[in-house]
Amino acid sequence: MIKVAVNGYGTIGKRVADAVAAQPDMKVIGVSKTKPSHEAFVAKSRGYPLYIADISRKAAFEKVGLPVSGNVEEMLKAADIVVDATPGGVGEKNKPIYQKLGIKAIWQGGEEHEVAGFSFNSDCNYKDAIGKQFARVVSCNTTGLCRVIKAIDDKIGVAKVTAVMVRRGADPHVVKKGPIDAVVLDPTTIPSHHGPDVNTVLPHINIVTMAMIVPTTQMHMHAIQMELKKETTREEALAVMKAHSRIGLVQSSTGIKSTAELKEYVMDLGRPRSDLWENGVFEASVAVVGKNLYFFQAIHQEADVVIENVDAIRAMAGEVTDPEVSIRMTNESLGFVAI
Amino acid sequence: MIKVAVNGYGTIGKRVADAVAAQPDMKVIGVSKTKPSHEAFVAKSRGYPLYIADISRKAAFEKVGLPVSGNVEEMLKAADIVVDATPGGVGEKNKPIYQKLGIKAIWQGGEEHEVAGFSFNSDCNYKDAIGKQFARVVSCNTTGLCRVIKAIDDKIGVAKVTAVMVRRGADPHVVKKGPIDAVVLDPTTIPSHHGPDVNTVLPHINIVTMAMIVPTTQMHMHAIQMELKKETTREEALAVMKAHSRIGLVQSSTGIKSTAELKEYVMDLGRPRSDLWENGVFEASVAVVGKNLYFFQAIHQEADVVIENVDAIRAMAGEVTDPEVSIRMTNESLGFVAI
Amino acid sequence: MIKVAVNGYGTIGKRVADAVAAQPDMKVIGVSKTKPSHEAFVAKSRGYPLYIADISRKAAFEKVGLPVSGNVEEMLKAADIVVDATPGGVGEKNKPIYQKLGIKAIWQGGEEHEVAGFSFNSDCNYKDAIGKQFARVVSCNTTGLCRVIKAIDDKIGVAKVTAVMVRRGADPHVVKKGPIDAVVLDPTTIPSHHGPDVNTVLPHINIVTMAMIVPTTQMHMHAIQMELKKETTREEALAVMKAHSRIGLVQSSTGIKSTAELKEYVMDLGRPRSDLWENGVFEASVAVVGKNLYFFQAIHQEADVVIENVDAIRAMAGEVTDPEVSIRMTNESLGFVAI
Amino acid sequence: MIKVAVNGYGTIGKRVADAVAAQPDMKVIGVSKTKPSHEAFVAKSRGYPLYIADISRKAAFEKVGLPVSGNVEEMLKAADIVVDATPGGVGEKNKPIYQKLGIKAIWQGGEEHEVAGFSFNSDCNYKDAIGKQFARVVSCNTTGLCRVIKAIDDKIGVAKVTAVMVRRGADPHVVKKGPIDAVVLDPTTIPSHHGPDVNTVLPHINIVTMAMIVPTTQMHMHAIQMELKKETTREEALAVMKAHSRIGLVQSSTGIKSTAELKEYVMDLGRPRSDLWENGVFEASVAVVGKNLYFFQAIHQEADVVIENVDAIRAMAGEVTDPEVSIRMTNESLGFVAI
Repeated sequence: MIKVAVNGYGTIGKRVADAVAAQPDMKVIGVSKTKPSHEAFVAKSRGYPLYIADISRKAAFEKVGLPVSGNVEEMLKAADIVVDATPGGVGEKNKPIYQKLGIKAIWQGGEEHEVAGFSFNSDCNYKDAIGKQFARVVSCNTTGLCRVIKAIDDKIGVAKVTAVMVRRGADPHVVKKGPIDAVVLDPTTIPSHHGPDVNTVLPHINIVTMAMIVPTTQMHMHAIQMELKKETTREEALAVMKAHSRIGLVQSSTGIKSTAELKEYVMDLGRPRSDLWENGVFEASVAVVGKNLYFFQAIHQEADVVIENVDAIRAMAGEVTDPEVSIRMTNESLGFVAI
Repeated sequence: MIKVAVNGYGTIGKRVADAVAAQPDMKVIGVSKTKPSHEAFVAKSRGYPLYIADISRKAAFEKVGLPVSGNVEEMLKAADIVVDATPGGVGEKNKPIYQKLGIKAIWQGGEEHEVAGFSFNSDCNYKDAIGKQFARVVSCNTTGLCRVIKAIDDKIGVAKVTAVMVRRGADPHVVKKGPIDAVVLDPTTIPSHHGPDVNTVLPHINIVTMAMIVPTTQMHMHAIQMELKKETTREEALAVMKAHSRIGLVQSSTGIKSTAELKEYVMDLGRPRSDLWENGVFEASVAVVGKNLYFFQAIHQEADVVIENVDAIRAMAGEVTDPEVSIRMTNESLGFVAI
Repeated sequence: MIKVAVNGYGTIGKRVADAVAAQPDMKVIGVSKTKPSHEAFVAKSRGYPLYIADISRKAAFEKVGLPVSGNVEEMLKAADIVVDATPGGVGEKNKPIYQKLGIKAIWQGGEEHEVAGFSFNSDCNYKDAIGKQFARVVSCNTTGLCRVIKAIDDKIGVAKVTAVMVRRGADPHVVKKGPIDAVVLDPTTIPSHHGPDVNTVLPHINIVTMAMIVPTTQMHMHAIQMELKKETTREEALAVMKAHSRIGLVQSSTGIKSTAELKEYVMDLGRPRSDLWENGVFEASVAVVGKNLYFFQAIHQEADVVIENVDAIRAMAGEVTDPEVSIRMTNESLGFVAI
Repeated sequence: MIKVAVNGYGTIGKRVADAVAAQPDMKVIGVSKTKPSHEAFVAKSRGYPLYIADISRKAAFEKVGLPVSGNVEEMLKAADIVVDATPGGVGEKNKPIYQKLGIKAIWQGGEEHEVAGFSFNSDCNYKDAIGKQFARVVSCNTTGLCRVIKAIDDKIGVAKVTAVMVRRGADPHVVKKGPIDAVVLDPTTIPSHHGPDVNTVLPHINIVTMAMIVPTTQMHMHAIQMELKKETTREEALAVMKAHSRIGLVQSSTGIKSTAELKEYVMDLGRPRSDLWENGVFEASVAVVGKNLYFFQAIHQEADVVIENVDAIRAMAGEVTDPEVSIRMTNESLGFVAI
């Protein structure tokens, strides 16, 4: 059993903890919080030992009925690997303690590539992660791009990608961030950082990305154009997507045309936290014109990287060396039901 | 086993079906759809027999892999009771068929009181529903008001209620309805219909309601003032609420200050569809000034009436005559975890 | 003086009326309303004679203090040209009356090209409109695309355009339309109708458009990629844009990064109704990579077509045959201040 | 001529400057900015001398074409009175410099009452402001409450006020603040600070306020209940409101039911920046039940305090001692057109 600590039990951390707990070969040995917020009560209800960064705050937790197992360093000492899901920029500051303790660590896409020196995506470079001490799971948007680009590139060949990323303004529970009524260019310049970020995983891909933020909380939407290396058909492109275990084709017969309806469908299917771990490619949108492939895909910002973290843990632990085996174990443990 | 049909498998219908299926004394014998939309696929995945209003559309369902068990009349003939969860105003048109077949029927709050001639709330008038052929479960907002008014009135005494209802513009998956950036008076006149609607269940309560619609999808918010019949304390008011199995006190220690954070908490607790069946009263907001009680409560528009429908079924079926017994059965079957 | 009637005094109609009234060679002889809504009071305050479609409703207008000058046919008889700004699809039904009366008519982009048989854009085909009886001013999005594509094509040469249109869900005062919290594909298929609509004005342009709707009211945003016929520089592309009287470069020094900030700036400049008649190209976003030009532009859905209507009137009236003269007259009459 | 400096040329400051410039007895001698943002360009276009806090940044302004007249202290020395419209909390820090220079100063509602020691509202306490060195114009919400409470109290008598304030999340051009999809209690506790704030102007009024924030940018909405000292009629209450020059009755005949439609109407009337300086009371909502008066009013957060600042300047300057005279001068200079 791989002993996993989750440092930062928030939006991503709580999902990673539950996904790890569902694996046959892993165990959550602790999660950390800085404040006794609602997530701390959730950790308690799940039975995850709760650790805190500043042990002097122990009384504040215990006063509201939250037992504390120790400080973060104690948690780390008990673990084989730590998933750092602290807010963007904080993870980098945790690196020295991971180095000091010699623990394997995984950061999220909010950190720079240089923090880990290696950026991970299950489909693209699982084998390169085997035995590594440090890795960074790329962001939700980059993960979504890497999956589908790699798949099309392997089977058909990709000459150039242009992706417009229409991003949600905040996660559903975040009430301080906007915008309320605006489209915000983020960044104002072109290209956005997403293209170079794809290149940390797929260095040879020619990609330009343009990004904006809109007033929604339910998933990002990507409008993608791929110039292919050869002519193809819509059927061939769809076949590549259908064959991929982490690309979900949103079928036209469902009548789903929006992120909100897609989220409702995933909720109705009983997925934990209504999470869509796959890329949600809208089947009706897939179009091929000459050597160009066009489509829309929804990316659930809170979910798609969760399963990548699980695979990264497994790769770095080193027991499972075949990416297909790990991906299948991860998918099956969560009971993927085709969307 | 009470055989239940759900006519209209949409936002409310799909939740009622799952809640009914979780009861030890009930069984879903069928659900109906008019179109092969995503919910029809969900019904199939749940194993609920699918009936359609217009049997000539059978081929359209079967073409996309949705087997059809028959038309709605066939479903009704196989049932003891039907929960009509069709869109507001449609339910009324279904009354003649229910009368013709002599089947018991429950309508939702989108219909007028007169359709059923009896408006239901588990806490207020369960016993009056015993053996009735027709009942109407009042709307989500009215249900939320009835619960808390009845509780305070029974224990302390309510002289007058003023409630400002800040309503969500649309359910989360509904993409055509607004507003996007406005506060809309609905109605422009005062009082709104909610006060008279409370009186269909609690005729003696003096209540004035004011209602508006805002650009959110996640729950209604009520700002409530109750003039009491005698002086009380904050502690006493809180004690009444805590003792109520369908009033959930959102504790200050969770740090939750909004509908969105409350929804996230309910989601994290693993509730199906992140449903909050209880009134979400914000503990920190409960204030007593002289003979006046003030508080905020969140009402999850998709969820709070679901458990009322279950109790209404049980009351109308006539086997369980003690409201407390039914309420406990309903709550326990769904695994209520205290919020 | 060209005598202009405005049939449909709503979002576009009221702006066209004010722009026409500001021209030295035009006069508003009447505007029409179907209901005595707030715009009817505005027409009265502006001194525009008010005509109504159904004269039997005259009393309803006069009861609230709105004098009625007659029915729509009377208005048309008094005019040289009518701008039809009725809701999309209604304009087509008005064609027979315009034909019967032999009046010149201009429709908006909500109607099909075939209604007028000629689609207009001041920069692209002013001369073709001279003396025409019927014309259709293309939609706000198409107008915005035509302007910039024509400019770049004339000076540099455009091989192919890919445009992702992120559209506002509703105009600011429209409270019934959504979405509230979703990205909606509209249409789900690729390409959207905008590309073919550009081809009604610029038939030779190779263009693919992808369109979605987001929860905002303040302008559309276009993410545009143009494959050019030859290599160019960012400076050259910017120079083409700067030289165009209806392309406004949003300068980086203003710090404006969003539609909302841009709208505020236009408001602060004192523009009537805070209207941005120009394409709002974000200077910082303009990028050239090899033979590809990329940029973001904001399109104010309520405003950019207004000045096109004015030019279309002038062209069809036939007195001014030089497009540059008409465009200058229109721009100067409105007191364009550089954004 | 009263020489007025505006310290902080932002949302409120830019409106105050324009309103001051429109007065026959006042003159804008300068405005201040910390950054060369878009408002600095607006100040230049208006011809207001631009001063900056940190004179070392002069080059940054001049590089983008913005001439700088000097530092803030120089501006203050040239003025009789300064309107401090810096962000909430900053104004307090400016007090020592105003004291040192012996200049009269007006703060906004974002500062505590104690900063000025005197809180101002034109209708309530103009005479108390005559000759004062320091005053604070209360916030937009408090201003809106004071106006209508004072009017009803004077003519009918107010025993108790309960107000639910449904507040906009951010101003239209502010893109970083949320919420996007939530109702946020702010504060979670009852009463909110608005009631005590009303008491800084009207100490004898018994008032309880409850406040929340919703995802809109276009005005606050107040749901108000007033328990009166005697019975009255709807007509009498409406007559009091109609007679008040800063309460605008939104007439039912306009069909306006929302903040967004009201804003559009004000825009269509040609008001600068679409500003609603008056309380927007919805005529249809005004209801009297026994001794209780109920109504909804929209409060334009960016506008209603602007005219109060103008009156405060005039009162503090001491020339005009009759509040009615100042109010009329202010209203007429802005060309109030009845809404």
